[in-house]
Amino acid sequence: MILRPARRLEGIERTLIRRIFDAAPPGAINLGLGQPDLPTPPPMALAGVSAIVEGRTGYTSTAGDPELRAAVAERYPGVASGADNVVITVGSQEGIFLACLAMLDSGSEMLYPEPGYPAYPMVARLVGAKPVPYPLRADGGFSLRAEDIERRLTLRTGAVILSAPSNPTGAGHKTPELERLLSVLRSRNVPWISDEVYAAITYDDRGASPGEISPEGGLVISGLSKEMSMTGWRVGWVVGPQAILSRIVAAQQYIVTCASSVSQRAALAAFTSEGRAYGKRYLARLLERRSLMALELSEIPNVRFAVPHGGFYFFADVSAYGSALETARRILERANVITIPGPAFGAGAEGYLRLSFAASEQDIVHGVRRIRRELTGP
Amino acid sequence: MILRPARRLEGIERTLIRRIFDAAPPGAINLGLGQPDLPTPPPMALAGVSAIVEGRTGYTSTAGDPELRAAVAERYPGVASGADNVVITVGSQEGIFLACLAMLDSGSEMLYPEPGYPAYPMVARLVGAKPVPYPLRADGGFSLRAEDIERRLTLRTGAVILSAPSNPTGAGHKTPELERLLSVLRSRNVPWISDEVYAAITYDDRGASPGEISPEGGLVISGLSKEMSMTGWRVGWVVGPQAILSRIVAAQQYIVTCASSVSQRAALAAFTSEGRAYGKRYLARLLERRSLMALELSEIPNVRFAVPHGGFYFFADVSAYGSALETARRILERANVITIPGPAFGAGAEGYLRLSFAASEQDIVHGVRRIRRELTGP
Repeated sequence: MILRPARRLEGIERTLIRRIFDAAPPGAINLGLGQPDLPTPPPMALAGVSAIVEGRTGYTSTAGDPELRAAVAERYPGVASGADNVVITVGSQEGIFLACLAMLDSGSEMLYPEPGYPAYPMVARLVGAKPVPYPLRADGGFSLRAEDIERRLTLRTGAVILSAPSNPTGAGHKTPELERLLSVLRSRNVPWISDEVYAAITYDDRGASPGEISPEGGLVISGLSKEMSMTGWRVGWVVGPQAILSRIVAAQQYIVTCASSVSQRAALAAFTSEGRAYGKRYLARLLERRSLMALELSEIPNVRFAVPHGGFYFFADVSAYGSALETARRILERANVITIPGPAFGAGAEGYLRLSFAASEQDIVHGVRRIRRELTGP
Repeated sequence: MILRPARRLEGIERTLIRRIFDAAPPGAINLGLGQPDLPTPPPMALAGVSAIVEGRTGYTSTAGDPELRAAVAERYPGVASGADNVVITVGSQEGIFLACLAMLDSGSEMLYPEPGYPAYPMVARLVGAKPVPYPLRADGGFSLRAEDIERRLTLRTGAVILSAPSNPTGAGHKTPELERLLSVLRSRNVPWISDEVYAAITYDDRGASPGEISPEGGLVISGLSKEMSMTGWRVGWVVGPQAILSRIVAAQQYIVTCASSVSQRAALAAFTSEGRAYGKRYLARLLERRSLMALELSEIPNVRFAVPHGGFYFFADVSAYGSALETARRILERANVITIPGPAFGAGAEGYLRLSFAASEQDIVHGVRRIRRELTGP
């Protein structure tokens, strides 16, 4: 007997990124990283140990540890007035899934950015919605244009995914465009889902955020994975109006019950002054690495890039050297450096490579130099 | 602007069990527990601490830690030949959700036991399937009858949920009935989903298991929460044929990414000889508590019960004292003891109370005596 998969799994595949990692030779320099190479900071690690020692190993409430929810709420003064506006999730990934499950009817359309995080269209399909891409344009620095989204709204649009700083481009929202978009969405009664998992990693201007402009109009998704180097702990959150959050909590009971109790206590330490201080140190470290990678990349002729506003990726135009997929493969096979080709993030990214600077200084320098030698010859 | 929930959330509510807990007065004796009051055993706790100290705090592969998958596979020699037959999930709850998401098409029917774990029909609704209950009959000791399921199979049946030992009744499957059922399901090409989260907690005969009889015909769901007192760590698994599991892994990437890396290392220790020894000690402890609760319950006139085959609940017929809901409320409000009324588990359980013996010996004795005094008068 063969177990037939449900139709909704058609086209649900591991991302190209995962497949590149799995096929990478051992010893490769990894500039494909989606997580910092830095350890989880001591305050959070110790809080995790304490949680175990103190026996905090039973279920938390479905919505999450009340102290953690209250701490998260304080980060979003415009959106959250307290713990009731926060649900703790299994990383921001479960936050995105829950938000889509809770707001997208089967058959409705979900608008998402392209290039963008490849999970968005997959999540839409898993909940029976139709993913509809909207373009982020290279000539606009990959920042959203309200018009590009507005033109794609239909009576069946169930939600619009917004993402800043963007993975892979590092772009933020520009306030006038975002204000214009949110005003349209409000008038059309279409909610936004704002993926802000890189929001704490911004280097200059924080950029505009949907929650501050239209606090009742959607859900904010984020987590500690990237900013605190806590990817494996799996702690994220959804922040938004209480009425929809209470429905999300009810659904979460039947999907994961709750996030790990140990991880939630570790996460709480990120909101103490010690935890925050580490967040600042890590951000400073990433800022140095950004400068380092910019310097090294600028040494490669005919590679064009913008220094990213946030996140920890350069999105570099290498089209002078051929297609992105071929270039990434050539760099991997002959220079032993992992990079992610633009098409992994959807249309509009042909000719680009994503290069992570969440790697060690040594890997950044050696990795980019190897790429240079491979592309330009000895 | 009001964020409208998707239609699939209609009727998705917190369970009656959760609501009873939330409304319970402080200081109540809790015989409603769904988790042992015992701590996570030291080998697993220490392994969790080591994982943190060693910095195992990044993503694991989506399918889970390969060592843990291999260890789980060894527990299911008939079903799994190795790690590729195992996906590590965020508790058995996510296992049930993934199994339903992966096998139930929108609009298909899912058969589930009543009385049974209240999450089954909720999960079906969340994935757009129609939950169809099949009865477990008190006069058959709440064990499944193949005929009761067979009669409810239609061309739209997408899967049948099986559960043993049952929450709330403690009943196991009887081999002849299970064999007959699985033969029918095979011939009709209908997969089973076997919830075995209490399978390691059996006191005499282990009972028949679907995976041993029809290894290619479905998915086994389990986890460490109950048997190792690890509910808060959130580690479970799905075991089954590789073809469908690879699709489940792809879906898991977009729901939770992976289970907590720290929790997965803690879980691995449960499969060492030290970990297993604790499992046996905990089982022996529960066995004593089962005897203790049986003794105390037998002192209440007109309360009828079967000693449970597995799990850690008595499902006692208290119909001589009125409706289950009224009796549970009366016991809570006047005797300050939490119990779960049968109707929390669906139809066919009117007149019953679920009493957990995953509580301390003292709570078992005092709790049941308080119930006796309340029901029979001073």
